[in-house]
Amino acid sequence: MPELRRDPIHGRWVIISTERSRRPSDFTQEERRPVGGFCPLCEGNEDRTPPEVLAFRGNGIAPNSPGWSLRVVPNKFPALRIEGELNREGEGIFDKMNGIGAHEVVVETPLHHETLATLPLHAVKDVLWAYRERIIDLRRDERLRYVIVFKNYGAAAGASLEHAHSQIIALPIIPTSVREEIDGSKNYFLYKDRCVYCDIIRQELQQKKRVIAENSGFVSIVPFASRFPFETWILPKIHQPAYEQMEPSLYGQAAEILSNTLLRLKKVLDDPPYNYIIHTTSFIEQDKDYYHWHFEIMPKLTKVAGFEWGTGFYINPTPPEEAAEYMREVR
Amino acid sequence: MPELRRDPIHGRWVIISTERSRRPSDFTQEERRPVGGFCPLCEGNEDRTPPEVLAFRGNGIAPNSPGWSLRVVPNKFPALRIEGELNREGEGIFDKMNGIGAHEVVVETPLHHETLATLPLHAVKDVLWAYRERIIDLRRDERLRYVIVFKNYGAAAGASLEHAHSQIIALPIIPTSVREEIDGSKNYFLYKDRCVYCDIIRQELQQKKRVIAENSGFVSIVPFASRFPFETWILPKIHQPAYEQMEPSLYGQAAEILSNTLLRLKKVLDDPPYNYIIHTTSFIEQDKDYYHWHFEIMPKLTKVAGFEWGTGFYINPTPPEEAAEYMREVR
Repeated sequence: MPELRRDPIHGRWVIISTERSRRPSDFTQEERRPVGGFCPLCEGNEDRTPPEVLAFRGNGIAPNSPGWSLRVVPNKFPALRIEGELNREGEGIFDKMNGIGAHEVVVETPLHHETLATLPLHAVKDVLWAYRERIIDLRRDERLRYVIVFKNYGAAAGASLEHAHSQIIALPIIPTSVREEIDGSKNYFLYKDRCVYCDIIRQELQQKKRVIAENSGFVSIVPFASRFPFETWILPKIHQPAYEQMEPSLYGQAAEILSNTLLRLKKVLDDPPYNYIIHTTSFIEQDKDYYHWHFEIMPKLTKVAGFEWGTGFYINPTPPEEAAEYMREVR
Repeated sequence: MPELRRDPIHGRWVIISTERSRRPSDFTQEERRPVGGFCPLCEGNEDRTPPEVLAFRGNGIAPNSPGWSLRVVPNKFPALRIEGELNREGEGIFDKMNGIGAHEVVVETPLHHETLATLPLHAVKDVLWAYRERIIDLRRDERLRYVIVFKNYGAAAGASLEHAHSQIIALPIIPTSVREEIDGSKNYFLYKDRCVYCDIIRQELQQKKRVIAENSGFVSIVPFASRFPFETWILPKIHQPAYEQMEPSLYGQAAEILSNTLLRLKKVLDDPPYNYIIHTTSFIEQDKDYYHWHFEIMPKLTKVAGFEWGTGFYINPTPPEEAAEYMREVR
């Protein structure tokens, strides 16, 4: 059973993973996947993943068989396990609990060489819709408090499989960074009686200099205090704290701007590795007024070194206004 | 002039660097340093760095000439500049100021192929003593609030020069992670009337299972809630919030345990890339009771991916007790 442990200074939780346990020699022998090797996420290999929890496929086709356009399956090497009790307990001054939660993989296409940036819009919309359905289902589990949806694209961004996929992790605690983001938004609201993200959207649309693209529902920007070169946020124009509670008709617009933004990144930076994360509110508070869900996309272009780890203070070598100009002008 | 910008949600500051400004093509053309190329940190090349601010060299030898055992020089491409005014100002809802601060390089040895792990103890002690002298000098500048001392070892950990060196950055603000660590320690103290780090030392020395090594002044441990495999902390046994205020006789002990711990890491993990950071209190608060300076060493063995960036929540595949056992038993 994986274990959740809490740092007594920061209140930061970590997962001590047992499924993935690694010895020194596992780190020193560099892992290399054979090019063109076996892919468990490809169509026809459905028996090589745990049984699907959601799939989009033609009517009358049996689950866990070919004929799907998207599948969601439990991770074969999960960081957390869905079965069991939390068993919160202390160990002297330290705190721990069992690693209860869900860890799922969204297989975005049956085809090995497609990427989210090049999939047709209806398929990107299906991916965003699958996130929504899974969050709604996971929220029913009363042991869970937060769900994070993210994508690692490219080995340098942490992807261990080449086939287009994203991941969903549901947690029994609210992670500290999420807590800080929600609290930061709340403090701003208490001070100004306005949502900080709504204020950012207003100022960015007025100044234009950090805007990459917009459609009727969304705007993509390079944020004023970007931590990383070409960091990009996609913000819904309509205030909504929870991703899964967004008006259903807006998922098409979300797919359009996500696809548009990823394609620009691909062109400007020659298909860079990247991570994206959906920032959404927690299960236990709905923060109607002050939190505002959004995407954060971080191309992996620089190495995070001692300074950043030690301070949470980033050195960004590309001014956000210049990055936005490159992104806006590419065709 | 570099610019400091503050994120309005988290209160996180970033440096938008102008000295280091990079365009898209700078990221896509992978940088490769020629092996055996010119090294500006080697003895004899003193004219290729800015003039030294501190050096240990024989009596009567002119500054910025050969004959030294250690030099501290300003970074040639500094993230922050020492000259100028802060000029704090707003830009709509955003906050910014000039990038005032210091960015220095500690050249740990005149010899290109030495490393901190293999230097003789007196040379390691000189490095730790140079950190102390520079912090004491930088504290005199009333514009500055915090100084971070760190080392990036190996290209994967962010080192851009091979020659053994560490870096010192002095900042006009207290970074959010430092703020959180100091506040976390304070909250613990207010609740228990004890220092959390003193409590950790007491419990670890009693349980022994996460201890790597100790001497009369220090203990090195794998922390209970390690974020990374083989993460290691070195804690002084005597409570002291500020690195530079440590009893002078203890720097030799600090050198001994740092050298010992780095050598163990090198052996267990086949000379891994790593970062270390000195965590010390800020210039404006001395936090006598609750903060406790220490080293944190993070071998770079896994890739930090979307999940970690999104949540500040880490998945560690090596249980700390196992890592400590490998580190303890290596010879």
